[in-house]
Amino acid sequence: MKRVRERMHARGGAAESGAAPAPSGPFRLYFPQLEREIPCEAGESLFHAARRHGVRIVGACGGRGTCASCMVRVGAGVLRPHEGRGPQGFEIELDEAGHPLNPRRWMRACRIGARSDCTVEIGARSLAPVVRAEVRIEEEAGFAPALDCSPAVRVHELDVPVPTLADDRADADRVLDACRDREDAPRTVAAASASELAAVLRADGGTPCRLRAWQRGEALIAFAPSGRRSLGLAVDLGTTNLAAFLVDLDAGRTLARLGVENPQTAWGADLMSRIDHAIGDPALADTLRTAACEAIDALAHDLCASVGQRARDIVDVAVCGNTAMHHLLLGLPVRQLGRAPFVAAVRDSLDLTARELGLAVAPGAWVHVAPNIGGFIGGDHVAALLATESLWRAGACALVMDIGTNTEISLIHRGRLWSASSPSGPALEGGHIGCGMRAAEGAIEQVGLEGGRLVVRTIGGGEAVGLCGSGVLDTVAALRRG
Amino acid sequence: MKRVRERMHARGGAAESGAAPAPSGPFRLYFPQLEREIPCEAGESLFHAARRHGVRIVGACGGRGTCASCMVRVGAGVLRPHEGRGPQGFEIELDEAGHPLNPRRWMRACRIGARSDCTVEIGARSLAPVVRAEVRIEEEAGFAPALDCSPAVRVHELDVPVPTLADDRADADRVLDACRDREDAPRTVAAASASELAAVLRADGGTPCRLRAWQRGEALIAFAPSGRRSLGLAVDLGTTNLAAFLVDLDAGRTLARLGVENPQTAWGADLMSRIDHAIGDPALADTLRTAACEAIDALAHDLCASVGQRARDIVDVAVCGNTAMHHLLLGLPVRQLGRAPFVAAVRDSLDLTARELGLAVAPGAWVHVAPNIGGFIGGDHVAALLATESLWRAGACALVMDIGTNTEISLIHRGRLWSASSPSGPALEGGHIGCGMRAAEGAIEQVGLEGGRLVVRTIGGGEAVGLCGSGVLDTVAALRRG
Repeated sequence: MKRVRERMHARGGAAESGAAPAPSGPFRLYFPQLEREIPCEAGESLFHAARRHGVRIVGACGGRGTCASCMVRVGAGVLRPHEGRGPQGFEIELDEAGHPLNPRRWMRACRIGARSDCTVEIGARSLAPVVRAEVRIEEEAGFAPALDCSPAVRVHELDVPVPTLADDRADADRVLDACRDREDAPRTVAAASASELAAVLRADGGTPCRLRAWQRGEALIAFAPSGRRSLGLAVDLGTTNLAAFLVDLDAGRTLARLGVENPQTAWGADLMSRIDHAIGDPALADTLRTAACEAIDALAHDLCASVGQRARDIVDVAVCGNTAMHHLLLGLPVRQLGRAPFVAAVRDSLDLTARELGLAVAPGAWVHVAPNIGGFIGGDHVAALLATESLWRAGACALVMDIGTNTEISLIHRGRLWSASSPSGPALEGGHIGCGMRAAEGAIEQVGLEGGRLVVRTIGGGEAVGLCGSGVLDTVAALRRG
Repeated sequence: MKRVRERMHARGGAAESGAAPAPSGPFRLYFPQLEREIPCEAGESLFHAARRHGVRIVGACGGRGTCASCMVRVGAGVLRPHEGRGPQGFEIELDEAGHPLNPRRWMRACRIGARSDCTVEIGARSLAPVVRAEVRIEEEAGFAPALDCSPAVRVHELDVPVPTLADDRADADRVLDACRDREDAPRTVAAASASELAAVLRADGGTPCRLRAWQRGEALIAFAPSGRRSLGLAVDLGTTNLAAFLVDLDAGRTLARLGVENPQTAWGADLMSRIDHAIGDPALADTLRTAACEAIDALAHDLCASVGQRARDIVDVAVCGNTAMHHLLLGLPVRQLGRAPFVAAVRDSLDLTARELGLAVAPGAWVHVAPNIGGFIGGDHVAALLATESLWRAGACALVMDIGTNTEISLIHRGRLWSASSPSGPALEGGHIGCGMRAAEGAIEQVGLEGGRLVVRTIGGGEAVGLCGSGVLDTVAALRRG
């Protein structure tokens, strides 16, 4: 048995010129941990095959071979190297037949392809479980920001007469006339919601119909049978995680919360990777846009199901995210975000229809997208500033920090506010740290000293499989103290 | 050779119960007039095969077998009867092998299927050529309505500085700031147009950019290099024909006009057929909607190409149509239009974004849809009333008529206005009249008496192939006079 890394690379080149037959594929990849089996084409990496079929392996660089976060072990099967650069120390070593020289060795899934059916084990820190939607700010941090409950939509309970030959007013007119005496009465019915209106009006047969109508600005935008709850959806569209909150708009109360990994991470964990992808290929920019919308739809569906309603009952949506997420979601150009002076296409807040964005909520609902501050300080930081305003308004000098894949910091001093940002995720979450990982199940998130010994706590409380950002900061603090 | 009509029908029944083998298909249909060859599935009629592949045969009833407007002759090939009812006198007569008993005989394409490859001739009055967009009101009728030119969009010519590290305002802010001193300055940039803005701003490289921006209400909605003409599109969405007019919004001048058959006629020439289709199948309602939008897009493309511009240069769109066309275009429910008291879902005029409607004009453009009067008097009649207002305001009593597939009439007397409507197309345009046809190439449209003899004039001036509505009226008048 001989080490043949260079030769394997040479064979890859030879195959392209026709000297050696290409592997015939597709082969089957079996993931025992997930009880999933998927096909892998002859030309693709294990990482890309997995992503394409919904098997989620962490990939901080999006499969370009520049990090080491997609670690796998192949127990049975014949492999081939997959082209690409990569950091030192992760060479793939195969024997002449294509078997790993050391089957216990972890390899990067983006740097190997299959030459036969394979059994693949995903490293614990490379598994991408569903994430938590954190809300410790309210529950543990000891302050509840005083926010008014004045939703952008308000509800009317209405009695609408049935049409007759003597009263052949249009559906929209009968319902608008029923609102006539109310304060700030609506003046129109949104075209997108008129279908719903016709259906609700005729659900009961011949009797006068009692229904609920939701108003936004001058228009009625949604209709439902009498008594249906007013649902709103708040979305935090993070680079790595996407969190959504279902809100009762009448009571101003959060009903349910849920988080998932942002599916755009399949095209790179960091913003720059995704910007590069979107610039290079307009179709890919649209794929990224659609992926974000589908994830929001999935969260809306699951949240509504958990309270016995449907996503179509959501009558208002608010989304915040950093400037790149904001631009990708709205289909705005991102090229200028990727180079100095890093200007946004749009800074103001935007209101657009859910139908225009392609979300499966009430067809007449609007989506409010929070404003950006600059090219790398977005609406998520604006939301953080608004949520903490009562705190920082109270002091002479305050610092508001939002630590994530990117970290934004605002210094507030004597009524002025300065903001700055820097990527932090890749440094803290595994891209270039041995055993580094995202804040997922099994990550060490707290490190302390007790009697001169390091004591660690993991997310979920189980065995440690890696170290996440807060764990790194805790470790540095503990080692300095110790 | 024996007449086997009844037996052929019996065989059709037997085939369904498995006693006789079904024809194997697909077969080829060759249309020598059009130099087109298309496949025809074993189970479908020649009419539906033709429609499915874009071969346009007139079908007043949408292929249900209740009219006789889809006449064809089959010169070579073996046929089978296709199920369905039909008017008397159009039985299909085939010999035992499936050959027509008289190959010179015209048959309804919706009532025959193929049992072999066939050569098909379409009757001259059943050919569906591209139609004219008529504008004789201005050019011949001797009056030019006095209309103000005050378009809903207005244009700004702007100089916008390039971004630098010292001036990192967002694209939208730099262009809004450049408008700041103008009257009714815009306050936002429409999200849908921000992509265009980024591209136009960066087309020149590093120099300050001179561009055109179009404003609607408080928002900038479109951007183009300096000097580009302001284009508007006006669409008359008729039941049978769809006419579009390209307008120079700065000069208030029509640049080009074009008409096509409304592609929805494939689902029936009359409104009720299409309403029935849309009620029965939501997917079909969406297909009808998309067909109308695609036809508008095609007209916009061809019109813009004729003046050397692109459809994306159209910054405003206005559409009028009868209430059913209006509802089908907007995806509104039509069930209540098909039964007493025939109420519309929406009567008011509507403004929605071109993107929401799916039109390929400037992404930030809006579409103004004219208001309806009632369930069967729509925005097309409102447009006719507006266009003739200077005439009927002048007299004590006036009648405004819009004769088409449906005819709308308004009586204006002492400042009051009464409107009524009735379907007229099927009666006048071929559904139940021998040699009747739509107002297309070869239709007799004028009939007069000269020295006791009838004299006819056809559309296009060539040989007569049928009689259209105005021809029928002229004939009745001439025969009464004679």
